[in-house]
Amino acid sequence: MVLERQRKSLTMPDLSGASTKNLPGQGNATREAILRKAVEISSMEGLESLSIGQLAAALRMSKSGLFAHFGSKEELQCATVDKARDMFIDEVIRPALSATGLKRLRMLCDRWLSYVERRVFPGGCFFCAASLEFDDRPGVVRDRIVQVEKEWLSLLEKTAREARAAGQLEKAVDSHQLTFEINAIAMGANWSFRLLHDNTAFSKAKNAILSRIDQAARPGKRKSKGARQ
Amino acid sequence: MVLERQRKSLTMPDLSGASTKNLPGQGNATREAILRKAVEISSMEGLESLSIGQLAAALRMSKSGLFAHFGSKEELQCATVDKARDMFIDEVIRPALSATGLKRLRMLCDRWLSYVERRVFPGGCFFCAASLEFDDRPGVVRDRIVQVEKEWLSLLEKTAREARAAGQLEKAVDSHQLTFEINAIAMGANWSFRLLHDNTAFSKAKNAILSRIDQAARPGKRKSKGARQ
Repeated sequence: MVLERQRKSLTMPDLSGASTKNLPGQGNATREAILRKAVEISSMEGLESLSIGQLAAALRMSKSGLFAHFGSKEELQCATVDKARDMFIDEVIRPALSATGLKRLRMLCDRWLSYVERRVFPGGCFFCAASLEFDDRPGVVRDRIVQVEKEWLSLLEKTAREARAAGQLEKAVDSHQLTFEINAIAMGANWSFRLLHDNTAFSKAKNAILSRIDQAARPGKRKSKGARQ
Repeated sequence: MVLERQRKSLTMPDLSGASTKNLPGQGNATREAILRKAVEISSMEGLESLSIGQLAAALRMSKSGLFAHFGSKEELQCATVDKARDMFIDEVIRPALSATGLKRLRMLCDRWLSYVERRVFPGGCFFCAASLEFDDRPGVVRDRIVQVEKEWLSLLEKTAREARAAGQLEKAVDSHQLTFEINAIAMGANWSFRLLHDNTAFSKAKNAILSRIDQAARPGKRKSKGARQ
């Protein structure tokens, strides 16, 4: 039931319902603490390595106490993905809702590419790691990760469409292709960071993405003169 | 020893030495057959799942016969990476050596982005899969994968620098940033293909990369008019 309540879309104007933190009672506070720890552990060691036993030990709780909140490992993993989604909304999306159109698009990308530096998740990008870990593991956890990623991509695409409709992006801009490129550059940066230990990967990605957006913008809406090289 | 002979750089003009196929004798033919099967299996099931036992069964050879070629699982995995590198050179790099500068850069990217469709490796992109599998597993296999990836990135960057020196790319082009973006878009496409089952990911990546190169090119060297959106 709680999980169902969390499934509100990232594209909805009111995002407050996406969090569990508005639910009343001590049980919810405990659940919140469990999930914060679960996100922390799984961002460092992987979502699959998360176990009710390990989590109970880290929180000094009994296994049966944890089972009262999460009936299975899969349910715990799905709730952890949802908690990470709440944190992503708070860190990346909510601050950008004060802006519209092109400005919102830039803010979303800027906050997204800098959230790894800001150590929102101790192990780096929770969703990069979770998506790579589960891309070949069919099941409800993978489905949940895919859904969050699709929500995020839809939000970017919708924002690009709105910017175009507002005359801020060139009419010929293909918002689907633009969104694909923005996301691909960020995911590719994560690849460079993990494999090549390239510490400049996310700043290069941020430059690339903001330049790409600039290039799609109508001349008067660009931040730099002319096309980038 | 054989592995040492294979370590010639991707950037060397004469790439023929990068393959084992010039080595004489029946032992080498057997080794070649083993490695072809090893590349096939690991491109589908992962390099870590590769075992001497499984490979011996697939090839109807004895385990001891295989041990005569590869003393350990790690040696087999490294030799498999080298074999995949040879195939990559044959499929992507060698055909582009007939061109120079900007044309070579376009050809390298074009052949790279289409090689998944051409089923060079039955499981998709061998190096995408191997790099994601080993990015958190320190050791000689990871080191070998990193070396091949760095060779590839160096080749792209060197080609971009040559194109700029030949007056084909704008003087202000940062060849390191350009190479980073080309690679990131391709790796990000692989992410979309694997997680979201997006069958258009590689063609979108190809469009993005060729447009990105076009944008870095001097006006007279572009394939399309003006800047892309």
